[in-house]
Amino acid sequence: MYDTSLFDVRTDLAIEETERQKKQGYPSYPGVSVDEYDHTDLSNNKGSIHVTTVRIQSEESAHVLGKAMGTYITLEVPDMVQNDGHIHREISQVLAHYLQDLLKSHFPVHKYSQTQQGLQVLVVGLGNADVTPDALGPRVLSHVLITRHLQNGSFQKPDFPIDSASVCGIVPGVMAQTGIETAEIIKALTDQIHPDIIIVIDALAARSVTRLGTTIQLTDTGIHPGSGVGNHRHSLTQDSLGIPVIAIGVPTVVGAAAIVTDTLDTLIEVLCRETDTKHFADALRSMAPDEKYTLVRELLEPRFGPMFVTPKDIDDTIKRVSFTISEGINLALFGDVASHTQKESHQSSLQL
Amino acid sequence: MYDTSLFDVRTDLAIEETERQKKQGYPSYPGVSVDEYDHTDLSNNKGSIHVTTVRIQSEESAHVLGKAMGTYITLEVPDMVQNDGHIHREISQVLAHYLQDLLKSHFPVHKYSQTQQGLQVLVVGLGNADVTPDALGPRVLSHVLITRHLQNGSFQKPDFPIDSASVCGIVPGVMAQTGIETAEIIKALTDQIHPDIIIVIDALAARSVTRLGTTIQLTDTGIHPGSGVGNHRHSLTQDSLGIPVIAIGVPTVVGAAAIVTDTLDTLIEVLCRETDTKHFADALRSMAPDEKYTLVRELLEPRFGPMFVTPKDIDDTIKRVSFTISEGINLALFGDVASHTQKESHQSSLQL
Amino acid sequence: MYDTSLFDVRTDLAIEETERQKKQGYPSYPGVSVDEYDHTDLSNNKGSIHVTTVRIQSEESAHVLGKAMGTYITLEVPDMVQNDGHIHREISQVLAHYLQDLLKSHFPVHKYSQTQQGLQVLVVGLGNADVTPDALGPRVLSHVLITRHLQNGSFQKPDFPIDSASVCGIVPGVMAQTGIETAEIIKALTDQIHPDIIIVIDALAARSVTRLGTTIQLTDTGIHPGSGVGNHRHSLTQDSLGIPVIAIGVPTVVGAAAIVTDTLDTLIEVLCRETDTKHFADALRSMAPDEKYTLVRELLEPRFGPMFVTPKDIDDTIKRVSFTISEGINLALFGDVASHTQKESHQSSLQL
Amino acid sequence: MYDTSLFDVRTDLAIEETERQKKQGYPSYPGVSVDEYDHTDLSNNKGSIHVTTVRIQSEESAHVLGKAMGTYITLEVPDMVQNDGHIHREISQVLAHYLQDLLKSHFPVHKYSQTQQGLQVLVVGLGNADVTPDALGPRVLSHVLITRHLQNGSFQKPDFPIDSASVCGIVPGVMAQTGIETAEIIKALTDQIHPDIIIVIDALAARSVTRLGTTIQLTDTGIHPGSGVGNHRHSLTQDSLGIPVIAIGVPTVVGAAAIVTDTLDTLIEVLCRETDTKHFADALRSMAPDEKYTLVRELLEPRFGPMFVTPKDIDDTIKRVSFTISEGINLALFGDVASHTQKESHQSSLQL
Repeated sequence: MYDTSLFDVRTDLAIEETERQKKQGYPSYPGVSVDEYDHTDLSNNKGSIHVTTVRIQSEESAHVLGKAMGTYITLEVPDMVQNDGHIHREISQVLAHYLQDLLKSHFPVHKYSQTQQGLQVLVVGLGNADVTPDALGPRVLSHVLITRHLQNGSFQKPDFPIDSASVCGIVPGVMAQTGIETAEIIKALTDQIHPDIIIVIDALAARSVTRLGTTIQLTDTGIHPGSGVGNHRHSLTQDSLGIPVIAIGVPTVVGAAAIVTDTLDTLIEVLCRETDTKHFADALRSMAPDEKYTLVRELLEPRFGPMFVTPKDIDDTIKRVSFTISEGINLALFGDVASHTQKESHQSSLQL
Repeated sequence: MYDTSLFDVRTDLAIEETERQKKQGYPSYPGVSVDEYDHTDLSNNKGSIHVTTVRIQSEESAHVLGKAMGTYITLEVPDMVQNDGHIHREISQVLAHYLQDLLKSHFPVHKYSQTQQGLQVLVVGLGNADVTPDALGPRVLSHVLITRHLQNGSFQKPDFPIDSASVCGIVPGVMAQTGIETAEIIKALTDQIHPDIIIVIDALAARSVTRLGTTIQLTDTGIHPGSGVGNHRHSLTQDSLGIPVIAIGVPTVVGAAAIVTDTLDTLIEVLCRETDTKHFADALRSMAPDEKYTLVRELLEPRFGPMFVTPKDIDDTIKRVSFTISEGINLALFGDVASHTQKESHQSSLQL
Repeated sequence: MYDTSLFDVRTDLAIEETERQKKQGYPSYPGVSVDEYDHTDLSNNKGSIHVTTVRIQSEESAHVLGKAMGTYITLEVPDMVQNDGHIHREISQVLAHYLQDLLKSHFPVHKYSQTQQGLQVLVVGLGNADVTPDALGPRVLSHVLITRHLQNGSFQKPDFPIDSASVCGIVPGVMAQTGIETAEIIKALTDQIHPDIIIVIDALAARSVTRLGTTIQLTDTGIHPGSGVGNHRHSLTQDSLGIPVIAIGVPTVVGAAAIVTDTLDTLIEVLCRETDTKHFADALRSMAPDEKYTLVRELLEPRFGPMFVTPKDIDDTIKRVSFTISEGINLALFGDVASHTQKESHQSSLQL
Repeated sequence: MYDTSLFDVRTDLAIEETERQKKQGYPSYPGVSVDEYDHTDLSNNKGSIHVTTVRIQSEESAHVLGKAMGTYITLEVPDMVQNDGHIHREISQVLAHYLQDLLKSHFPVHKYSQTQQGLQVLVVGLGNADVTPDALGPRVLSHVLITRHLQNGSFQKPDFPIDSASVCGIVPGVMAQTGIETAEIIKALTDQIHPDIIIVIDALAARSVTRLGTTIQLTDTGIHPGSGVGNHRHSLTQDSLGIPVIAIGVPTVVGAAAIVTDTLDTLIEVLCRETDTKHFADALRSMAPDEKYTLVRELLEPRFGPMFVTPKDIDDTIKRVSFTISEGINLALFGDVASHTQKESHQSSLQL
């Protein structure tokens, strides 16, 4: 709503950065590893889940890629837009697997045994519940198992495993609603209740519309300024909060600027096919970045302002994916306790 | 909202009528059969589902019981208020079983084969989505598989079974929102799209708070004036609409009048235990119904007006049960097609 | 959601058609009159309301313009995006003025006196309440004074003017939710309750983002296939429903196709400024429409599919404008009765 | 939801305490002053606003009345349930008047001039947005003018008065949703952003249903354990937060326990009218409080548990009153700045 980087051709997806840089003929980066893996579901003939793990371990590469150092795990599932319980159940399980890996990488096993209550987790649902594509975070939180109040004092449930995670959560709202930076609210809450770790869920901006509702990004680098549909101005990271911050995001919008730039690039390709326009295409392609930037500004300003592009059925996508992610979180934090419920998802409750 | 029978001690549950009449020493009724069955879940040690089927087949008994002739199937599940995926999955399956029985009792098997599209079903979500305990119908409809538009013309999905049910649905709203009787809207729609059968979901008023969120009533007698939380003034029945009307309801409120009357009855019991007040209790008990009614009016009017009593956590109950019912409907109508999704429920998405 | 004309560069605004045609050097059309008027608010120094009335009275021009014959009244108010009670109150009054003119043009004055209940109006709130930019219709309806049930029988309120309009309303939902064409639902309801006239509110698609939230279109030509954010496939017109249909719409989205085409056009302008690219710009401009169309398809397909572009603060716009329109309708239908309330608007309830 | 005082016959209204104590023949209390005033609206013939100011200034009386020391201002407006813009506008103005008095009693005038930004206010919307009668706080907050982010740095709006109040707000949710005590969240936020004062809005429980939607309580004693529809377990007071806490509440529910007790009292009155039962009535009336309590427990337990009683049209009441209160707050904090908007209310947007 207060996007100060309108014309920055933004993506919140590390994997898109990598792709883009590669396209532009950059060499592979020092201290950056990329692993890929396919989780194929044998139980049905539907598509598999392609997982790419990008580890950025050098300052320099982090700078070049414009991403913080850390681990970025990307689940690519074209069928995630489908209303199929099998697939979403599988996604929840794969997400839980990688989420647990990230958790363990930040806490030695004995941490879990040291405490009676297990990990103290604060789950934050970022975004504006009143704007459909920005409502992912609030919707996910409404499905996450909240247990902290059950373990503290009078609400103890005997049949509830005393050593499972203690989970609390909050939907801080957006600054136009509260007048307070989300980062201020989370910082205040963290200092008050001292969780071991924070899991933040947010709707992301992608560069390519093919990413919308088909990709889940999991990272331990937290949330950085300018990221998310609402473009947070302050960061939610281990540096700013003092504890690890895991961010789970799904692209739900593409910035208008990104679309225009993509259109230009595609236009260039098109022109190149015709000899009589090739020389212009070459000239256009050879434009220096800042010339291109100036041109894009002229094309955009003031017409596109803080606009975003989103699919017409974004409500179904948000409804479906928010539940799939919440189940992944529940399974990662409660394991067997939640497993019999984790196997379930409400995909059939969505329109075909 | 326009309840014209405020002081009528109402229940929408046939089973409560039966109980009440029995309490009052009535003989069993001619033409009324009562069957009971326990569905025990072997897969867990949680409580079972107690199903009572009341068939009212004589005009006289219907009159005495103040219920229309037809079949009333009541599922009693004390654990339905629990957030346990197993139980809710089981309830959906049992509900689907009895719903299919009702459907088959109204349509010969060959009906299903005669048509390419199978049964044409209109699902109606009654109630006010803005009043939590009255939002059951709208919430259920948001989870029902809607397929009619997929089978008509351009939206045909090749992988969708051509002979499965064609389901459409509507949330008509309440009269204060529309200015139109719900019955008018449904009658109009029925005459326009000619479904084979209507399934109506509505929040009910019970007499006992122990019924709230723990009972599901399934009947082929439709909706009658004064029933439901919103107290419909016109009926939705085979007589009024020309096609069978199956009603699925869950008690979510108790009328203030019912509570006061119950309090009186309990008071009498209490008084009887003490000799010094017994004679008064006897006198009070011996009051003629209309005397009692007058007393209740004095106790109520104008204080209680159109009030209802509902639990503080009614939002969780509505969220949970609405999904359980929608899954039962989806399984009954789509069978194997939906079965892999039907096994799922989003109970874990609810707060413990 | 089932947009069958993805790459058609659509606008639902007659005024944009006129502008575009003019740009393209067409002559003015026979049988088309355009009147403009400025309503300046003396009470404050904020901008005025520019009203353009386009009357299309010849078949031929209707065909060329791709719009139905009838009257199109457009209110242009750049300040409508502001949170200023004065301006919105003024807009409601101006809207009421033109709405009454349209009503009177369809009903002789004596109509009002002939009936005790005055005009029977059905207000339809089109769109998907779950998708923010498509929620205009449902939101407007929640603010419209519903009186039909107060005048029928038992709900008569003595202090309510017996000769004022009888207003009822419905939110039919979208096909993905109901499986039923909106047109079927409205047709059925119209045949059942026989209103004199229908007022339909819908969110529109514009070509220019500068139109979003700053323009209100009022027309007596109803809703046509492919119009609205949801792209209705069937029409809601006097031809299809047998009674006059007045449509009130506000642009809340721009189709992705429109944005790309605009970008192309702007690109051409930019290129023309530089001599070395001018010849290419000329060539590009001289492309035949179908060539251009092919180019746009190449640029779009499959990347943009059924996407729309909308502002990040669309939730505030919908909240604000939906109330402004409902007040205009209330004043037009209830005049002095509603005037003391009409003077009010809840603009201050919106974030600055 | 975790009500630990089910059978305590609760009221959150100081005025009801006073009444009850008086009924029971208590003497007036030392250190307790009661002032009453009628604000009559000359502009219409509708009822006036009756304001009672109770000041509790002695520990002893505070103890006897079971209320904290401080000022309790009660607005009684039977017509507040009406959909009349005049009345609600008037209520907003009267509320603003008394709210400003409370603010000034806590801050010397020079405080306002000392700071460039004026008073720093944190507005808290307590309650569960998903349970209609508990949604008052969240609904009010959605209408309050939020300005803090406009005055801090980059969002400064030149046309916004630099010396007006800086307002921020939050909807903390309820413990079943967050796992965190509301008091913990507010304490954390207060320590982080250091407001001068907190204004808390909450739905209250009354003893008499005649209070529902017709009474507004304004107090500088904050929120105490067990108060509110959700029964907070920790307090939000100057003692706990270190800054003044003004609470604004409207009764939206009556506890089941209160209704039963009222029924008993009414029953006694009824019995007294008939000689043959008078002696019993006397006996019953003469019961010691703890006997009566035991009887009430028998009547209630376990039947009523955490139940509440609320009107069927509570959604309209919440919609209407939440706006009226937000306007009162906006006027009190922004005065002339907001006055032109304050005069407005969206009452006409509600069903008659």
